Amino acid sequence: MGWEAILYSDPMSSSLPPEWIRQQSRELLHTRVFDVRASEFRHPSRAEGKEFLVIDAPDWAVVAPVTPEGELVLVRQYRFGAQQLSLELPGGVIEHGEDPAVGAVRELLEETGYRGAEAEVLGWVHPNPAIQSNRAHLIVVPDAQPVEATDWDADEELSLTLAPIDEVLAMGRSGKITHALMLNMLFLLEPWWKQRARERGTI
Amino acid sequence: MGWEAILYSDPMSSSLPPEWIRQQSRELLHTRVFDVRASEFRHPSRAEGKEFLVIDAPDWAVVAPVTPEGELVLVRQYRFGAQQLSLELPGGVIEHGEDPAVGAVRELLEETGYRGAEAEVLGWVHPNPAIQSNRAHLIVVPDAQPVEATDWDADEELSLTLAPIDEVLAMGRSGKITHALMLNMLFLLEPWWKQRARERGTI
Repeated sequence: MGWEAILYSDPMSSSLPPEWIRQQSRELLHTRVFDVRASEFRHPSRAEGKEFLVIDAPDWAVVAPVTPEGELVLVRQYRFGAQQLSLELPGGVIEHGEDPAVGAVRELLEETGYRGAEAEVLGWVHPNPAIQSNRAHLIVVPDAQPVEATDWDADEELSLTLAPIDEVLAMGRSGKITHALMLNMLFLLEPWWKQRARERGTI
Repeated sequence: MGWEAILYSDPMSSSLPPEWIRQQSRELLHTRVFDVRASEFRHPSRAEGKEFLVIDAPDWAVVAPVTPEGELVLVRQYRFGAQQLSLELPGGVIEHGEDPAVGAVRELLEETGYRGAEAEVLGWVHPNPAIQSNRAHLIVVPDAQPVEATDWDADEELSLTLAPIDEVLAMGRSGKITHALMLNMLFLLEPWWKQRARERGTI
């Protein structure tokens, strides 16, 4: 039985929860990274309106640069939210109207100086659908190789490193990588990598 | 060669990036869900201070309630950030000073009416270390079973459903679950579940 059948045949889920309708918003805070709005939502059946917080930001991209040797290019940088160094995959902000795969390739080149074969979108996630409207796109760049010097933004001081994909998966599962969106990438990369290895006959 | 060796033997990563030092903060926005602060950070070697945005919020918990039949208890609810219905695991906010496992069990009971055997912390993530200071704890509750009626917060209208863990893993990898923190839970739950199945001799 597929999951659709399970969802809708289960007596507990005989009715879907209500979908509220977004009305007008008022801006509470505007920054260069995100805006915070108080948005009024109307309940579809109850005669009720209520304000909820929404953080609006551009979409983000996380990039998995896979070298011909089956390694990932990782970056380590200081993160001002967590206030500590963080081991991550490259990534950044997708510009307005920009194709996520194009943005991912651009960010990869700026941050690491690496470029690869055609980028492949593995999926996207809501970083936090409760309070954020944006998405993070998860993009793999196969055959990534260093082609030029990095082009860092101000205050972007990174150290690069390479590690085999299987090692990085283990690091993700043992707390050495803690960035939620990087772990999302690893979750989707694992079957992609196994499939690729099967196709190449290396496992 | 272990990953530590790779990191520090690689010429690209011969030096770690700088760790800035947080100085005073000023509050830009206070809400019932999170606060936004502009925090001044000082660079450790450059004679330079600069303000960065930090979203401070309580820690969160994501709960994987595993039934004796090997199913997960899922909740579907409207999410005001993404402005759509979202299929998720239970979870919520850890109260100040509360043990994450205790908070997870409390949230599970309130949201679903389920309780289980002793909760097990699989790990934690930074939801977004670039701009958020808090953590999300990933907690599994084995042998989860319905014991009482739900106790929803105002505006919390959920539909519950059950699905086998393997189905939920497939849903997570095919875009039917898009909440980043739920996918983090699945990433850590997969090896836990395989290990448990091996111990029970069911695979």
